[in-house]
Amino acid sequence: MARSHGRRSDQLRPVTITRNWLAHAEGSVLVEFGGTKVLCAATVESGVPRWRKGSGLGWVTAEYAMLPRSTNTRTDRESVRGKIGGRTHEISRLIGRSLRACVDYKALGENSVLLDCDVLQADGGTRTAAITGAYVALADAITWMRQRRMCPGDPLVNSVAAVSVGIVGTEPMLDLDYSEDVKAETDMNVVMTGRGDYVEVQGTAEGTPFDRTTLNGLLDLAASGCADLTRLQTEALS
Amino acid sequence: MARSHGRRSDQLRPVTITRNWLAHAEGSVLVEFGGTKVLCAATVESGVPRWRKGSGLGWVTAEYAMLPRSTNTRTDRESVRGKIGGRTHEISRLIGRSLRACVDYKALGENSVLLDCDVLQADGGTRTAAITGAYVALADAITWMRQRRMCPGDPLVNSVAAVSVGIVGTEPMLDLDYSEDVKAETDMNVVMTGRGDYVEVQGTAEGTPFDRTTLNGLLDLAASGCADLTRLQTEALS
Amino acid sequence: MARSHGRRSDQLRPVTITRNWLAHAEGSVLVEFGGTKVLCAATVESGVPRWRKGSGLGWVTAEYAMLPRSTNTRTDRESVRGKIGGRTHEISRLIGRSLRACVDYKALGENSVLLDCDVLQADGGTRTAAITGAYVALADAITWMRQRRMCPGDPLVNSVAAVSVGIVGTEPMLDLDYSEDVKAETDMNVVMTGRGDYVEVQGTAEGTPFDRTTLNGLLDLAASGCADLTRLQTEALS
Amino acid sequence: MARSHGRRSDQLRPVTITRNWLAHAEGSVLVEFGGTKVLCAATVESGVPRWRKGSGLGWVTAEYAMLPRSTNTRTDRESVRGKIGGRTHEISRLIGRSLRACVDYKALGENSVLLDCDVLQADGGTRTAAITGAYVALADAITWMRQRRMCPGDPLVNSVAAVSVGIVGTEPMLDLDYSEDVKAETDMNVVMTGRGDYVEVQGTAEGTPFDRTTLNGLLDLAASGCADLTRLQTEALS
Amino acid sequence: MARSHGRRSDQLRPVTITRNWLAHAEGSVLVEFGGTKVLCAATVESGVPRWRKGSGLGWVTAEYAMLPRSTNTRTDRESVRGKIGGRTHEISRLIGRSLRACVDYKALGENSVLLDCDVLQADGGTRTAAITGAYVALADAITWMRQRRMCPGDPLVNSVAAVSVGIVGTEPMLDLDYSEDVKAETDMNVVMTGRGDYVEVQGTAEGTPFDRTTLNGLLDLAASGCADLTRLQTEALS
Amino acid sequence: MARSHGRRSDQLRPVTITRNWLAHAEGSVLVEFGGTKVLCAATVESGVPRWRKGSGLGWVTAEYAMLPRSTNTRTDRESVRGKIGGRTHEISRLIGRSLRACVDYKALGENSVLLDCDVLQADGGTRTAAITGAYVALADAITWMRQRRMCPGDPLVNSVAAVSVGIVGTEPMLDLDYSEDVKAETDMNVVMTGRGDYVEVQGTAEGTPFDRTTLNGLLDLAASGCADLTRLQTEALS
Repeated sequence: MARSHGRRSDQLRPVTITRNWLAHAEGSVLVEFGGTKVLCAATVESGVPRWRKGSGLGWVTAEYAMLPRSTNTRTDRESVRGKIGGRTHEISRLIGRSLRACVDYKALGENSVLLDCDVLQADGGTRTAAITGAYVALADAITWMRQRRMCPGDPLVNSVAAVSVGIVGTEPMLDLDYSEDVKAETDMNVVMTGRGDYVEVQGTAEGTPFDRTTLNGLLDLAASGCADLTRLQTEALS
Repeated sequence: MARSHGRRSDQLRPVTITRNWLAHAEGSVLVEFGGTKVLCAATVESGVPRWRKGSGLGWVTAEYAMLPRSTNTRTDRESVRGKIGGRTHEISRLIGRSLRACVDYKALGENSVLLDCDVLQADGGTRTAAITGAYVALADAITWMRQRRMCPGDPLVNSVAAVSVGIVGTEPMLDLDYSEDVKAETDMNVVMTGRGDYVEVQGTAEGTPFDRTTLNGLLDLAASGCADLTRLQTEALS
Repeated sequence: MARSHGRRSDQLRPVTITRNWLAHAEGSVLVEFGGTKVLCAATVESGVPRWRKGSGLGWVTAEYAMLPRSTNTRTDRESVRGKIGGRTHEISRLIGRSLRACVDYKALGENSVLLDCDVLQADGGTRTAAITGAYVALADAITWMRQRRMCPGDPLVNSVAAVSVGIVGTEPMLDLDYSEDVKAETDMNVVMTGRGDYVEVQGTAEGTPFDRTTLNGLLDLAASGCADLTRLQTEALS
Repeated sequence: MARSHGRRSDQLRPVTITRNWLAHAEGSVLVEFGGTKVLCAATVESGVPRWRKGSGLGWVTAEYAMLPRSTNTRTDRESVRGKIGGRTHEISRLIGRSLRACVDYKALGENSVLLDCDVLQADGGTRTAAITGAYVALADAITWMRQRRMCPGDPLVNSVAAVSVGIVGTEPMLDLDYSEDVKAETDMNVVMTGRGDYVEVQGTAEGTPFDRTTLNGLLDLAASGCADLTRLQTEALS
Repeated sequence: MARSHGRRSDQLRPVTITRNWLAHAEGSVLVEFGGTKVLCAATVESGVPRWRKGSGLGWVTAEYAMLPRSTNTRTDRESVRGKIGGRTHEISRLIGRSLRACVDYKALGENSVLLDCDVLQADGGTRTAAITGAYVALADAITWMRQRRMCPGDPLVNSVAAVSVGIVGTEPMLDLDYSEDVKAETDMNVVMTGRGDYVEVQGTAEGTPFDRTTLNGLLDLAASGCADLTRLQTEALS
Repeated sequence: MARSHGRRSDQLRPVTITRNWLAHAEGSVLVEFGGTKVLCAATVESGVPRWRKGSGLGWVTAEYAMLPRSTNTRTDRESVRGKIGGRTHEISRLIGRSLRACVDYKALGENSVLLDCDVLQADGGTRTAAITGAYVALADAITWMRQRRMCPGDPLVNSVAAVSVGIVGTEPMLDLDYSEDVKAETDMNVVMTGRGDYVEVQGTAEGTPFDRTTLNGLLDLAASGCADLTRLQTEALS
């Protein structure tokens, strides 16, 4: 089966990371994984949620959403339906947890960073693109804070990137686009630090359950993809 | 008072209209009025709302929303708050009414076009930019439909464009940016057809009520601005 | 075409303004424009919304709603549907803006007046009747406040009245009832001060877009209608 | 303790029942129990709720609500809060059940009557006034239906009226107004048919629990009050 | 007609009251009336709702809910539907009022007890089982508070129990199960104190309105049932 | 560190699986993992969701919820808050996906099974207990269906069980209770089939990111725990 962009099974789609896409946000990135485009905006707020007040510690959180026509068939707005769906909740929570793995709360002080990840166009891997882009927006927001001497230390202690891997047919593949994703037997999202440790591993058998060997193969593929993304993040930030 | 982009009081901000910004939508436009960026996506659906079924007539509607960090200070998502605010409702309805003025429902047949106007970045005039851009997305969507012979006739019988005008200090000004908008005594949004007729006139005294002479001056300014925008739409579509 | 109440195209329907219709409210008016009956209740609260605290300035706001059987066909309650519709939001905001044009916030001090406008029976022009009646309820509430020495000055610096005008067939008409409203090509609501200045002009082409001459004719008609309503308000308050 | 309107402990407040208060509804009544004013509107719909379709039986239901400034202190709208409170639900259900006791569903045929009871002004006993007035509106709606030959038989097989009774201090009293209601140790709402049978008995010890003798005394008082109300309903309908 | 468990018309179903069913709650009871099983959990909170602050008085409230498959046919979750139904509201309010009749607010001090009554399995009489069980959970919670010297006095000044009675066919029956409940002409829930006084009497004619003699018969039956339940509560607590 | 129940780091807590806990459900299980108690009820419905109609395929889904006082500190009801939280959504989706891995949709025919998993008491591992118990409830529901010849074949093609593993301090541990869970650096939930394949792997670094060696150790521990649970499920069903 030929892959889009003529790539091999262990290759990422073309990735672009455009910083400062928005005028108002303290950090903002338009990240593209092939046809997937996510706008990541970091908002700095002094202060933390109520349950954390007085702790001396900061907080990082995220909200994910899709524009109604980011998808092939239009999706109704969650604001119109009056409630947020399970998938949206799940991905928002995943992005938040992933980014918190980069941050030293004490060095952040009682400040918050909120990452808004809005999918402008979806072609598979929106959550992994969001995490990868949001990291860069977060890094910019933290630079912005440090220039204003808002933080008691350097809060950015790590980097994170994320990629999807899956079994399509019987072949393990990296960074699935939408057409591959719908055919995948197994789908796994892996979030890793720049040092190669795991922040999150989420693997799901969409079809046949998978064995340990398959799992190991997918983890290898993901490690290589995350390493590539880490390089691209570093280039974008330099 | 100097205006942004060094423009005169009767000049528009730089306007760009980028067609086909999205891969999936039947028509899509990124419209920019200076720092205001609105992504307009047209979705074609065969069929009409229930109350219109069997009439042989089509329908056009719109939804407007702002990304949380399109604004200088972050705005909470309406999906998170669980309800749509009054301003959002009001602007969605205005865009829908404005675009319906271009359309011959009979020639459209029992098909619907839904225009999603999402503000990516806000710097004043988001509703007028949305109408101006959505018209172009609508025109593209109708071309798409006609290529597929979905319509019994040519539904696009007019064009619409919109601009804001206002009194800043004592001076009438065209196409207010955010910094001008917050200082304006009177704020008026005018939607006009390509032939120079009115579709919608909405003037509000934010401060001192205004007299008939002022009203007339603002209407003149708006007519000239809408004529310029009509020209830009025509260029974009050719 | 004969109009209800045998009136000319530039005549209002019979208007009655009954003050003190409710026992508990600080100001209350039952206003009738022909078959349209709106109950306007003014509630005085000491204090202002959070975003205005400490400013020394007061606030005026409004909420509009229709009883389910005010209309010919029953309308579901917004409380039952669990959300407020766009039209309700839009009219509530219009009434609030209109009344704020009468008020000197500084003279009001940090007090709020909330105007509830509930349509008991609808026959066209409910929003204009609501504004016209709410002004009288507001005036009574301010008198009530001044008797209790709640305000640092006299907050009532102007009066407002509102009327609808429209093109029915080809004829411009004042104060449309429901049967005229559904046939109107163009529909315009105009809010004016007692001194004859504009607070709000909202004109919409329901059918064919309208030209400047038509717009001017409608504005003339509205000015004369508002002047009549101002006279009736003054009589009611004396 | 002197009662309002100089009445004895076993006397109703002045009751007025004004029919045809609304132009559009198939039956409508403004009912007043002293200072309590409730607008009752009956809406006839051909057809029944889904769970009852094909049964050949009709349905009667009710919705109760209070205008925000019907009360001494303003109450927020349930539409604004986005949900209906427990008290509103409870009273709506009570009114519906009470009116269904008058109706032969078979004779009604597959038609529905919905009674909207909106409290314009509250001074105690709003639910009992609502039931008493809604019965008259229902009777008018059924006459309207029979004139149009919508019903297979005569659906109105009974009448209902309702009154509150309570122990204020140590004295049993009929038809409590608000000032009495807040002081009552025990509060009971009784719904009875025109023939003197019980449809609903709801007694609550707000303070000290009550004994059987007290309960019997209150039931006697309620029977006499309901008989008076039945007489007033009959007069209003003749 | 034979009754379940071979019981007479004036007999309760087998009742069991299991204390300390939950590890975390300050008081918890699994109460069973035949096949009806309700889990009652008492939560102690220091502090009272805002409107009661500074009064020196405590508060007791309750929430009732049914698990989706407690019923024969599955009922959708109210959390999924996004709102609480009228019946749930009504029963929650009834349980709260009933338990407040046991409590001396002053002796409770500014503390709250919240009773959660969750129906695990429903076979008629869920609200009366909930009240009867919640009383025992409340008593345990108050003991827990007194051991920690949270209360200025002894807040438990009474006991309450509740039972349903009804006319099935023409026979008055105690403690209806579901199969009897659906056939009942009249249905009455009675809440009584351990001393035999009434806290709440709620009788409804589901079919034919009932006369005073029937009402008296049902009240007698309920008094005897509540006395039995009081005995069982006392045994459980000793 | 001593573990509850005196168990080793690779041991499960005492597990009990009580079938037929509810009278009405087609399958029901009370599953206990130590102090965690989850009531799992399977509801059979003939028919499938709209998007699946006419496919000949069945469907399995799940809803998870916690009783308010299942937790140490009371949690507000999601029905009262009016919306379902992200965690609830996430776990409901996980349970549904896990159980679908056991099922041959074709053999199920156009029938649905809905698993309600309500946490009565929470002490860590509620989602894994829910999956493990829900499998048994599902098996019983499928037996019930097959006895009624509702299914074209045998839909149960696999079994699933789930367990949590984590790093507490530096030690990998199986089946964390609440006190261990809050201290865990890394937390992983693993769902496996009875044949030892993976259905779902969800690992999260709550503190320090983890390396591949740690991941492998946790996967080993989980495999052994799931094998034990599979044995217990088999015993319970025999």
